[in-house]
Amino acid sequence: MSKTAIYPGTFDPITNGHLSIIRRALQVFENIIIAILHNPQKTPLFSIDERIYMIKHALKGEKNVEIDTFEGLLVDYAVKKKTNVILRGLRALSDFEYEFQLALMNRKLNRDVQSIFLTTDYKWFYTSSTIIKEAASLGGDVSGLVPYIVNRKLKEKFRQSKKT
Amino acid sequence: MSKTAIYPGTFDPITNGHLSIIRRALQVFENIIIAILHNPQKTPLFSIDERIYMIKHALKGEKNVEIDTFEGLLVDYAVKKKTNVILRGLRALSDFEYEFQLALMNRKLNRDVQSIFLTTDYKWFYTSSTIIKEAASLGGDVSGLVPYIVNRKLKEKFRQSKKT
Amino acid sequence: MSKTAIYPGTFDPITNGHLSIIRRALQVFENIIIAILHNPQKTPLFSIDERIYMIKHALKGEKNVEIDTFEGLLVDYAVKKKTNVILRGLRALSDFEYEFQLALMNRKLNRDVQSIFLTTDYKWFYTSSTIIKEAASLGGDVSGLVPYIVNRKLKEKFRQSKKT
Amino acid sequence: MSKTAIYPGTFDPITNGHLSIIRRALQVFENIIIAILHNPQKTPLFSIDERIYMIKHALKGEKNVEIDTFEGLLVDYAVKKKTNVILRGLRALSDFEYEFQLALMNRKLNRDVQSIFLTTDYKWFYTSSTIIKEAASLGGDVSGLVPYIVNRKLKEKFRQSKKT
Amino acid sequence: MSKTAIYPGTFDPITNGHLSIIRRALQVFENIIIAILHNPQKTPLFSIDERIYMIKHALKGEKNVEIDTFEGLLVDYAVKKKTNVILRGLRALSDFEYEFQLALMNRKLNRDVQSIFLTTDYKWFYTSSTIIKEAASLGGDVSGLVPYIVNRKLKEKFRQSKKT
Amino acid sequence: MSKTAIYPGTFDPITNGHLSIIRRALQVFENIIIAILHNPQKTPLFSIDERIYMIKHALKGEKNVEIDTFEGLLVDYAVKKKTNVILRGLRALSDFEYEFQLALMNRKLNRDVQSIFLTTDYKWFYTSSTIIKEAASLGGDVSGLVPYIVNRKLKEKFRQSKKT
Repeated sequence: MSKTAIYPGTFDPITNGHLSIIRRALQVFENIIIAILHNPQKTPLFSIDERIYMIKHALKGEKNVEIDTFEGLLVDYAVKKKTNVILRGLRALSDFEYEFQLALMNRKLNRDVQSIFLTTDYKWFYTSSTIIKEAASLGGDVSGLVPYIVNRKLKEKFRQSKKT
Repeated sequence: MSKTAIYPGTFDPITNGHLSIIRRALQVFENIIIAILHNPQKTPLFSIDERIYMIKHALKGEKNVEIDTFEGLLVDYAVKKKTNVILRGLRALSDFEYEFQLALMNRKLNRDVQSIFLTTDYKWFYTSSTIIKEAASLGGDVSGLVPYIVNRKLKEKFRQSKKT
Repeated sequence: MSKTAIYPGTFDPITNGHLSIIRRALQVFENIIIAILHNPQKTPLFSIDERIYMIKHALKGEKNVEIDTFEGLLVDYAVKKKTNVILRGLRALSDFEYEFQLALMNRKLNRDVQSIFLTTDYKWFYTSSTIIKEAASLGGDVSGLVPYIVNRKLKEKFRQSKKT
Repeated sequence: MSKTAIYPGTFDPITNGHLSIIRRALQVFENIIIAILHNPQKTPLFSIDERIYMIKHALKGEKNVEIDTFEGLLVDYAVKKKTNVILRGLRALSDFEYEFQLALMNRKLNRDVQSIFLTTDYKWFYTSSTIIKEAASLGGDVSGLVPYIVNRKLKEKFRQSKKT
Repeated sequence: MSKTAIYPGTFDPITNGHLSIIRRALQVFENIIIAILHNPQKTPLFSIDERIYMIKHALKGEKNVEIDTFEGLLVDYAVKKKTNVILRGLRALSDFEYEFQLALMNRKLNRDVQSIFLTTDYKWFYTSSTIIKEAASLGGDVSGLVPYIVNRKLKEKFRQSKKT
Repeated sequence: MSKTAIYPGTFDPITNGHLSIIRRALQVFENIIIAILHNPQKTPLFSIDERIYMIKHALKGEKNVEIDTFEGLLVDYAVKKKTNVILRGLRALSDFEYEFQLALMNRKLNRDVQSIFLTTDYKWFYTSSTIIKEAASLGGDVSGLVPYIVNRKLKEKFRQSKKT
């Protein structure tokens, strides 16, 4: 019986959409592992440490959540963490295509690991880390879409980059 | 902590795609309730009793599965069954749209009930009860797409209807 | 110069999604004509008169809105009302396909009439008159999705139909 | 080696979109069999005989085209006609889903029969027999979307139905 | 009352699809501002000055059109130009997803600004600046898809790049 | 009458999905030309020579297949090879959009060349060269998704890159 679900992602940065998925998943599973993908080929806006800091801050008070990072195959990470449940949020149509492809490939790589999906609440349906970073970089107010700490960090980042 | 998931549907008749979802869900949840929707406005091919019989037959050996029927709001049924997890299989794109609409409406009706999705295995991706019934009614061989018992019952049904 | 837009639909019944489109359209156009399609082939839940009554009630205070009914080709109705703008709300993907087909056919029928689209606010993205009626018919609470008057009328309708 | 392709459909009535697919298919295959599906459960606008008449009229001059009707499984009909190619036109997204489901089911029923697709020319991308009949029934001018003979027959049909 | 609509884009280069949207929008709004997005992170094929020159040339004779450039948030630009209408053309499905995301984010950033959509005429449904540039770079004839001046400039560009 | 079809692609590397399309196309056409696109702007994982080698190896025994490379416009290449049929496999929804755009552009560039589509077998529906390379690069076992020779070459590639 699986009581822990892995919620993998880039979380660059965590948004209110992610938080909503996590809170709802905690009504289904006993523990959630937020697994930050460490992808050496990409250049994120925030470092792994900054991302962990923001997630911790945003989740203050939420028990039963572990924050971790991983490299390599997600299904191998799941085995290592002794669980067989991968949790993903589904937003819009483009997510759907990509998520199916991933889920089917993961199933090919390890048939014991199950990908399960929660639909993102309508409020976050068309909000992604990418579009939030874009808006924030142009001075747009993204409060309400991200936790307070992320809003502050985004402002700091883009203030710095303007000075440069 | 939720250990039981409700898997609602019409199951007219149950297919190998449904069975695959049920078996995979049993790796995530302790118990699955197969909840056959009793919709007085529709005229199914198989009666509720026939559907229950075929499901039971196909699942012989699977423990931890309860077969039930329901009417009215699914979220009310979930409360009555003391669980907060609704399980749905996602196949193709058209499913996705409809399932999202349902999931969001159910969320509006009861925020404590969570809809979670498993993707159908690629083998059953484009197979539905509807297209299987169509093919079978024209004499097509649908073995491999449905359990043995369903295949036999489909043949019986359509042999009878030809005689009429 | 076009200052009036026609907002055609079945409005069986009007929802908060429709109201949101109307209010936003009033920031773009001077007048909106809510044009209820009279389709003799369909059996709506509410009569044309009931639908007009509910729209009037819900829009109390909104000036610059005319409520009307039409039969036949929408582009002919637009010509009759001396405007060239048809307004439609876009929700989900399935809308998109259908709306494009309609818009292109209307364009073929009269090249001077322009179909313009507003995206429905995310709150109403997956809410339709159809699913609202379904939920209400099963006793679901749809307040917040429809105007107060519609909520009351839905309850009346479905209480009556239960007595029958 | 397959030199004949079956182009199945309802053709109620044939449109310029169908004709475009047929003409292009004749650049790929030596012969095309237009196979009108006889579906006893549906009530078409035009009888099989009317449909054959209109197709013949519209294709006058096109050699290498056979007009036929069929019942039952399409793959069985293909075997009977000694070909293994089913030709379908792809228009919009909703077509795509449905056509894939059909193609995969047909493949399950007979692995030797291949479904191949031509994309409809952009002009006919959002035009279907259904929407054309709707527009014509309301007095819309659909010339340019259908062959001359079909346009005339549509006018006759809907003039009659108004008298009734 | 809003009489001016902003039509933002990259216009690298302007196509007949863009021109069709502009001409139809002029039947709905009194003035259109073609607002070229200046995005320092991208390397366009044509400079801003070349793009302005081609748009001016292609629109010769069209009154009520202003050509401008902007940086930063589109909603801030709309406020600066004293209008509240953003106009976008919708082509295919992938547009739809992206445009909805943008429209909802813009709505979050400034609720007074309304995004409205016109569907691209079927002729330009699957034609984008990107695919036109690709075809032209390989020597394909794109006349009929772009204004005369753009066709000439594309040929110049790709002749130069071959010499290099 | 066209008896040869061109199957263009990057084939970096060839997958079992490609092979399935080729084998089925050989039931429709007499000869298939596998035309590897030489795109100087991209950096593939395998060189053209490696890709040809793997295709040859995987197709050993399949007669009536020619392996070739091309640059420039595909429609020009078709003319050069004296055929008018371009063959493409359709997998998922995102393919569909892109393939339609290509097919329509190719049709604009040369109306005599016909793009025809085969649907990929469900087994390969959500498998692409890209996701296979990703999985292999992380040590995932992709046997069963690619021919034996490709599996071996992928392992060699990624063992080398780890040593670097």
